[in-house]
Amino acid sequence: VTVTLSADGPTLGVVGGGQLGRMLAEAAAPLGVELVVLDPTPDCPAAPVARDQIVGDFDDRGALEALADRADALTFEIELADPDLLEQVGDAAGVPVHPSPETLRTIQDKLVQTEALAERGIPVPDFRRVDDAADLEAALDDLGRPAMAKARTGGYDGRGNAPVASVAEAEEYFGRLEGLLVETLVDFEREVSVIGVQGDGERDAFPVVENVHEAEILRETLAPARTDDAVRARAREVALDVLDAMDGRGVYGIELFERDGEILVNEIAPRPHNSGHYTIEGAVTSQFEQHARAVLGLPLGSTALRGPTAMVNVLGTVESPRPAALGGVEGALSERGVSLHWYGKDEVRPLRKMGHLTAVPTGAEEGPTDQTELRSRARDARDALRFEFAEEER
Amino acid sequence: VTVTLSADGPTLGVVGGGQLGRMLAEAAAPLGVELVVLDPTPDCPAAPVARDQIVGDFDDRGALEALADRADALTFEIELADPDLLEQVGDAAGVPVHPSPETLRTIQDKLVQTEALAERGIPVPDFRRVDDAADLEAALDDLGRPAMAKARTGGYDGRGNAPVASVAEAEEYFGRLEGLLVETLVDFEREVSVIGVQGDGERDAFPVVENVHEAEILRETLAPARTDDAVRARAREVALDVLDAMDGRGVYGIELFERDGEILVNEIAPRPHNSGHYTIEGAVTSQFEQHARAVLGLPLGSTALRGPTAMVNVLGTVESPRPAALGGVEGALSERGVSLHWYGKDEVRPLRKMGHLTAVPTGAEEGPTDQTELRSRARDARDALRFEFAEEER
Repeated sequence: VTVTLSADGPTLGVVGGGQLGRMLAEAAAPLGVELVVLDPTPDCPAAPVARDQIVGDFDDRGALEALADRADALTFEIELADPDLLEQVGDAAGVPVHPSPETLRTIQDKLVQTEALAERGIPVPDFRRVDDAADLEAALDDLGRPAMAKARTGGYDGRGNAPVASVAEAEEYFGRLEGLLVETLVDFEREVSVIGVQGDGERDAFPVVENVHEAEILRETLAPARTDDAVRARAREVALDVLDAMDGRGVYGIELFERDGEILVNEIAPRPHNSGHYTIEGAVTSQFEQHARAVLGLPLGSTALRGPTAMVNVLGTVESPRPAALGGVEGALSERGVSLHWYGKDEVRPLRKMGHLTAVPTGAEEGPTDQTELRSRARDARDALRFEFAEEER
Repeated sequence: VTVTLSADGPTLGVVGGGQLGRMLAEAAAPLGVELVVLDPTPDCPAAPVARDQIVGDFDDRGALEALADRADALTFEIELADPDLLEQVGDAAGVPVHPSPETLRTIQDKLVQTEALAERGIPVPDFRRVDDAADLEAALDDLGRPAMAKARTGGYDGRGNAPVASVAEAEEYFGRLEGLLVETLVDFEREVSVIGVQGDGERDAFPVVENVHEAEILRETLAPARTDDAVRARAREVALDVLDAMDGRGVYGIELFERDGEILVNEIAPRPHNSGHYTIEGAVTSQFEQHARAVLGLPLGSTALRGPTAMVNVLGTVESPRPAALGGVEGALSERGVSLHWYGKDEVRPLRKMGHLTAVPTGAEEGPTDQTELRSRARDARDALRFEFAEEER
C-alpha cells in the first residue's frame, strides 16, 4: 500500500455514521483522510464532520455500491453491517474491506465467535449452545444458576444479554429459547478491556483499562486498570492472541473479565469501542486514528498512555424520547482538564449514549493525578449536565 | 451566554477557511460546535471538515451576510478580514464578532498595533514611522543599521518584513517608502511566543515556547522554551498585559523576543497561531478548542502542557507551484509519537505551509523525552516526506 496525500485525501467509506463514525472523521481529518458514511438517518452524527453522507440502509446494495465508488477502503462502525453484501460490493469495486467480512460474520454470531476463540485456546467462560428448554436446563445444571444468556445475533449495548436462573426467566426476557448462547456467570474482580489493533504486518494493543457497567451499559472507564502487572501482561497477551484469530486490519474492542488473576474473553467488537474513547486524550494515538491508519495500511501509532485518564459516558437521563437539548455545558466545561464529546444525536432516549467526558491531569498543583480522582472530576462534569426540554428554550 | 447543545450544534461563522479554519473545525466538533467558513477558494482546506463553506471573497458583503445568518458568533482566521464590514454585518444580524473588529483594525496596521502596546507600557522594540527617504534616514540613524522594516499593512508569513540598511535597500524590497514601520533589529537570544486567550471574564496564557524562523517563516516550535523561570514568568505577564490591551474574546498569538532576560513584543495575531499548533497534542486544551470556547463565551480549558513537545512545519519544498501530492507518508508515520497534520491544499508552492508534524514522548523506554530530542524525531518524519509530481502517480 502506498498512500499519497493531495487536496482530496484518501477516502474511507464507512458503513454507519453514529458517534464512532463521527470520532473517526475527527481523527482522520488531520491525516488528510476523508470519510464518506452510509447511514439511514439523515444528518447522522458523523455527517457534519464527514466529507459526505449517503443516506441509505446498511443493507441497501445500491447505496453500498455508491459508497464503494467513492472509497479507497471500506470499513464499518456497527456490527449490523451485512458481511455478504460488503464482500460482494467490495470485490466488484476492487475496494478492500477491513476488518474482513469473514471476521464480521464470525463476530455477529456470539456462539460462533466464542467457539472460534475457544478452538484457538483463548480463555473464555464455559458456554453452551441453547435452542430449547432441554438445552437450557442442561446448561443451567452444568454452569450454575443464574447463568448469562445472550441472543446469538442482533444484541448491542446489553440489549440481548440477561442473567437467567430458569426456563421461565429466559422465556420472559427472550420470548423464545432458540438461538441462545449461555455462559457461566463470571464472578469477576473487574471488568477490563483492551483495544487491539491489527495493522499491515504489525499488531499492537493499548494498555488494559477498567470498566464499570450498569444494566449492561458501559458507564465509566479508568485508564490504566487498577490491577497488577501480571494481569496487565496477561491481558495484553490474550488480546494479541485474539487479533491472531481475526482476519483483516483495524481496531478491535476486546472485553475481558479479570477473575482470580486470570483473564477471560467476554466479547469482541470488530471496531473502535466505547471503552477506548479514553484514548483520544489519554493515549499517544487515539483508537480512531489507529483504525484509520490500520484500514489504509499505514504504520500504526504508539499505543502508550499519556497518563492516567478517566472517561464517563453521558447517557440519556430522560424517561421517554424527546428532541436532544443539553444544558449545563458551562458547568461541565469549567471542570479543569475535562474534555466534552457531544455526539450530535437529534433525539435523547432513556440510557442512550449521547456523549462522553474525559478527564486528564492538568499538572501537580492544579488537581487530581490518579485515575480515581480524575473519575470524580469527570463525574462532577457529568452531573452538571442536564437534558432540557427544547421547547422551554424557545 | 448560555449554550445549549442539540443535534445542530452552535455554529461559528469563520472568515477564512485555510488550515487554521480546518483545525478549528476539527477541535470544535467534539464540543458539538459546527463551522461554516467563508473562503474564495472552492473546497478550501476547512471545507471537508466544516458543516459548510460559503464561496466568496472576504470582503463580499452578501457572502458575509449569508455567513452571519447561519452563525451564533462570527470570528476570523486571517487578518485580511475586513473589520468595517464585519462590524456592520455583525451589528445588522445581531451576531457578536470576536475578537472585536476594533482589535482587528488595530492589529492590521503594524504601526497602530505597536503604538497601542507602547502606550500601555508593554515593552516593544524602539520604532519609527517612515513615509519617505528622510524619515528612513533619520530612523536608521536612531535605531542602527540594519533595522527591521515592515509594511504597516498587508504582510504575512514574513512577506512585507525585511532588514534594511539604506534607502536603496528599502526601495528595492518595498518599491516605495510610504507606510513603513521601522524597528530596532533585536539581537535576541531566542524568538519565543505565547498563545494568550481572552474568555468571558477570564484570561489565561499557554506556557512560553521557543520558535525557529528562517526567511521570516516559522519552521519549528519547542515546548516549553529552553529558558529560565524568570523569563517564563515575565513572558506570561507580558502576554496577559497584551490581552488587556485587546478587545474581544478569542485566542491571540503573541510573538516575543527574549533579549538579556527581558521580553519584547514583536507582533500579535488575533487568532490561533502557527506557534500554537503544538497545543493540539502538547497541551490539555488545544488553542483551537480554546478559541471555540472563548468566542462562544464558554469556560476556558486548562493551558497546562502535557509534556515536552516539538512541532515542525511541512513547507512546500518545490521550485514552482504544482498540484499537491505528498509521498513518504508511511515513513513519516512510522516515527513513534509523531502526529501528522495535512492541510489538504490543492497546490504546493515554494515555502507554502502544507502541513505540520508534532512529536510527543511515548514512555521512558521507547524514545526521546525532552523537546530537543523530540524535534529530531519530528525532523526525521519531515525528511521522510516528499512532494511528488501527481502526474507520475497516474
